Amino acid sequence: MRKRVVIALGGNAILQRGQKGTYEEQMENVRKTARQIVDIILDNEYEVVITHGNGPQVGTLLLQQDAGEHVHGIPAQPMDVCGAMSQGQIGYMIQQAIMNELRRRGVERPVATIITQTIVDKNDPAFQHPSKPVGPFYGEETAKKLAKEKGWIVIEDAGRGWRRVVPSPDPKGHVEAPIIQDLVEKEFIVISSGGGGIPVVEENGELKGVEAVIDKDLAGERLAEEVNADIFMILTDVNGAALNYGKPNEKWLGKVALGEIKRYYEEGHFKKGSMGPKILAAIRFIEWGGERAIIAALDKAVEALEGKTGTQIIR
Amino acid sequence: MRKRVVIALGGNAILQRGQKGTYEEQMENVRKTARQIVDIILDNEYEVVITHGNGPQVGTLLLQQDAGEHVHGIPAQPMDVCGAMSQGQIGYMIQQAIMNELRRRGVERPVATIITQTIVDKNDPAFQHPSKPVGPFYGEETAKKLAKEKGWIVIEDAGRGWRRVVPSPDPKGHVEAPIIQDLVEKEFIVISSGGGGIPVVEENGELKGVEAVIDKDLAGERLAEEVNADIFMILTDVNGAALNYGKPNEKWLGKVALGEIKRYYEEGHFKKGSMGPKILAAIRFIEWGGERAIIAALDKAVEALEGKTGTQIIR
Repeated sequence: MRKRVVIALGGNAILQRGQKGTYEEQMENVRKTARQIVDIILDNEYEVVITHGNGPQVGTLLLQQDAGEHVHGIPAQPMDVCGAMSQGQIGYMIQQAIMNELRRRGVERPVATIITQTIVDKNDPAFQHPSKPVGPFYGEETAKKLAKEKGWIVIEDAGRGWRRVVPSPDPKGHVEAPIIQDLVEKEFIVISSGGGGIPVVEENGELKGVEAVIDKDLAGERLAEEVNADIFMILTDVNGAALNYGKPNEKWLGKVALGEIKRYYEEGHFKKGSMGPKILAAIRFIEWGGERAIIAALDKAVEALEGKTGTQIIR
Repeated sequence: MRKRVVIALGGNAILQRGQKGTYEEQMENVRKTARQIVDIILDNEYEVVITHGNGPQVGTLLLQQDAGEHVHGIPAQPMDVCGAMSQGQIGYMIQQAIMNELRRRGVERPVATIITQTIVDKNDPAFQHPSKPVGPFYGEETAKKLAKEKGWIVIEDAGRGWRRVVPSPDPKGHVEAPIIQDLVEKEFIVISSGGGGIPVVEENGELKGVEAVIDKDLAGERLAEEVNADIFMILTDVNGAALNYGKPNEKWLGKVALGEIKRYYEEGHFKKGSMGPKILAAIRFIEWGGERAIIAALDKAVEALEGKTGTQIIR
């Protein structure tokens, strides 16, 4: 009986810190990532479902919207649409790279990217407190003008200029879950909920895109529930979670039981917007009934799945 | 026994001529289109599969890539990636609009956009003769500089400036066909091959994106074969095909047999890059074994399917 694992790829699977974001750079990173994933797919002990971040790519799209408006007078598309674009962009690169890596090893297996909408609650308190900076930096005057024109909320960002902030509501589930479930059951390899999914609210029973960002690990956890996963593995640029991270008494966490990690989480050991949501996603997965949640370095995915490295959260 | 119909939506389903391309404009058009499509879905005589164009949207993305490079120093993504972005963008709008229209009528039915790669032959003669202008207009000097830097081919475009040209190779089929087939069999509503699909060639058994554009009707016809469609319907901004189009002796075509339309096609009645590929797609579909190919106006989709309007091509 194979285990079903949802793999949440961090930004470094697609773009490394310090890189400029050329297609060649991104495709090279994606190819490396694909090798890791195909190792797991061909292990035959696992069924793999993939999700990924989109931070740098959607950031770039927002800057391009801004520049296109100024240079060519092209109306900027809203954030939900940019999120959809980034799902197409990144999904395409990942699906092609995985299929090519499979073919290199003599296996023909279709891979699909599903454009995914993530439901958030329109009464989520995050909508009252937009906190996530997105898009270009502006001077104070321009920022305030844009805020007035477009209904944005802008803040001064750590002395670097003014920026738009958007809410980061909690994901509830994915509109396309039945489709994803069907494809996973058929053993197709599915890429979905990219960038945490396109945030939508339900109003009078209808879906409506909102300008917000969703944490991709929290959304990935909902995906793991929806596909009834055994394992939820978050791959990032550090080899797991640590207590007192960055301090002299820093202590990396290996195998940790649910009760213990919950206590650490409540004690505030994990940084908001970084390790915090990863731990919260892991806690939710185990509380839902998952067998194991893993936080590990991207280049140690196989060892992490074997339990040899990374932070392993269990019941 | 229900008939399976592949519907190829023209650019006017998403953006009307003369509109600027705001999200609101596009979404309003898409909502209207969704009403037509849902009429057909709920007819219960048909199973619907959807594809669509992406001309204005990918054009916009190319301009934004250009502007982003100049204003923010962001590396431009290649055309295949922009095509993938446009599939995400347009697919998202269509899937949401269809689902909402279904819900308004009390029906819950999942709709999925599949990021789709279209295989083209790397020896396609089109690669020797790039002919499709894309992206911004440049002055002669800039155009020639870019041609040198990026390996582009540029031409002088009818006195309006210099522009890049790319090949428009013939689509052979879709990499994701098995996934699309599975979802269609399950009666999910699938949006795929957007903008004719992302053009890829096979080199040593591996897929590789190429900078080209694929005619969305020719690609839609391949999709119709792959899902074993009975009917292939192209919806556009005119009510069918005509002989001597725009001349005093113009004659609109209603029901036409395969042999007759082939003769008109060979006589050069249909404009290259416009009605020409639509007729070619229709001919291919009937020759493959399809029952009926339709070319009709978007707002008359239901009547056209009932055979009451549009050009109807049969065996």
